[in-house]
Amino acid sequence: MEPTGAAAVIIGNEILTAKVVDENGPHLIRRLREVGIPLRSVELVPDEVDVIVESVARARLRAKYVFTSGGIGPTHDDVTVRAVALALGRRVVRLPEMVELITSRAKDALTAEALRLADAPEGAELIAQPGTWFPVLAVDDVYMLPGVPQLFRAQLEAVLTRLSGTPVYLRVLYLGLGESAIAAVLDKVAMDMPHVAVGSYPMFDRSLDYMVKVTVECVDQGPVEDAVARIRKGLPEGAVVRAE
Amino acid sequence: MEPTGAAAVIIGNEILTAKVVDENGPHLIRRLREVGIPLRSVELVPDEVDVIVESVARARLRAKYVFTSGGIGPTHDDVTVRAVALALGRRVVRLPEMVELITSRAKDALTAEALRLADAPEGAELIAQPGTWFPVLAVDDVYMLPGVPQLFRAQLEAVLTRLSGTPVYLRVLYLGLGESAIAAVLDKVAMDMPHVAVGSYPMFDRSLDYMVKVTVECVDQGPVEDAVARIRKGLPEGAVVRAE
Repeated sequence: MEPTGAAAVIIGNEILTAKVVDENGPHLIRRLREVGIPLRSVELVPDEVDVIVESVARARLRAKYVFTSGGIGPTHDDVTVRAVALALGRRVVRLPEMVELITSRAKDALTAEALRLADAPEGAELIAQPGTWFPVLAVDDVYMLPGVPQLFRAQLEAVLTRLSGTPVYLRVLYLGLGESAIAAVLDKVAMDMPHVAVGSYPMFDRSLDYMVKVTVECVDQGPVEDAVARIRKGLPEGAVVRAE
Repeated sequence: MEPTGAAAVIIGNEILTAKVVDENGPHLIRRLREVGIPLRSVELVPDEVDVIVESVARARLRAKYVFTSGGIGPTHDDVTVRAVALALGRRVVRLPEMVELITSRAKDALTAEALRLADAPEGAELIAQPGTWFPVLAVDDVYMLPGVPQLFRAQLEAVLTRLSGTPVYLRVLYLGLGESAIAAVLDKVAMDMPHVAVGSYPMFDRSLDYMVKVTVECVDQGPVEDAVARIRKGLPEGAVVRAE
């Protein structure tokens, strides 16, 4: 089966060593949900070529679209391009179009290292991004976004305009019973309707008027309403405090 | 080589579908840094047994200690115990000690599903946690923590008292030059001193008085000071705006 949806690889020692709190993973999760592209996994990995290669290769088995964050730049810790190329079995080449962009921008201050930004997996496409000189680097549905949050966000939007999703239909039930009391009912519905995702989230905050939040979702409304009706029917009277 | 450090597997559809923002990953990253246990990777995965099995098995190849978050509970989407058992090649058994805890706590309201909380990979150890009835479930250095943030935090502390780390010595340089201008110097130091971690983080906020933050770290102070001295020497005069 062809993989669908997306997977993300967030690259950076600075995140794993608590110097920076990752904002790009949560932002990507939120935006993909909004546009209706299911997200299969997010992995935070260090700036190490072999770990990134493995992670990108695995992401491609799980998902159609792969987003990487970070490791795009001219310094020794910027290894994403090399790792993505290895994961795809492609060579790294210098893109003439990028050399031109970098040269015209740097003017007299051009260094050999600045030109590393022109390196990309062979066959890479540059997706122009309105309002900035630096295009999005993409190849085989792997989108290599920069780690700096404002750049990540801008480039992500440029990519999302090209992808199409299917928004999810979601219903939520707030229950006045604990998980152990409702597990049998949820089990049965989840088992009978595998295409509907049923989630159960216990809350331990006594100030709330419910004990468990149950989510029911699917891209189609019909099965969701059907599953909600079955859950309601299976629960004791008065168990549902509130529904959304 | 025996793996060292830690790796994390954060389990939960609710996170990947943006219903909940994961707090446990960032909290774990911060606490491990504070106690000086290096973190190799963090993976966010759905409530799917096969994906979790793969992720836990991989985490164990990368790191000595594996922390999982979420999927501990009595409902159909709580599959962590089963997945960890599979990843370790162990059977799932019902722990008499847990059955007793659950039975005495539930009193008359005991359901068959509540007893699922007593299931664990064979050989699992229960780490008592002061102030709460639910112990930490651990086996082969895999610590299965609950997803609810307040419980995750409490259980993590119970585990951390048993592990020992080596705090990292960190120096930071704030530079008034761009990454392309400093890449050659950093490259050389990073190459010559592979045991010292050198990070380079460009800032695109024009209100800052520097353009790049360079971090230099290692468990030993000597090599860090040596690397900082080499970087300073390699940079043009006045490049360092500030140091920490």
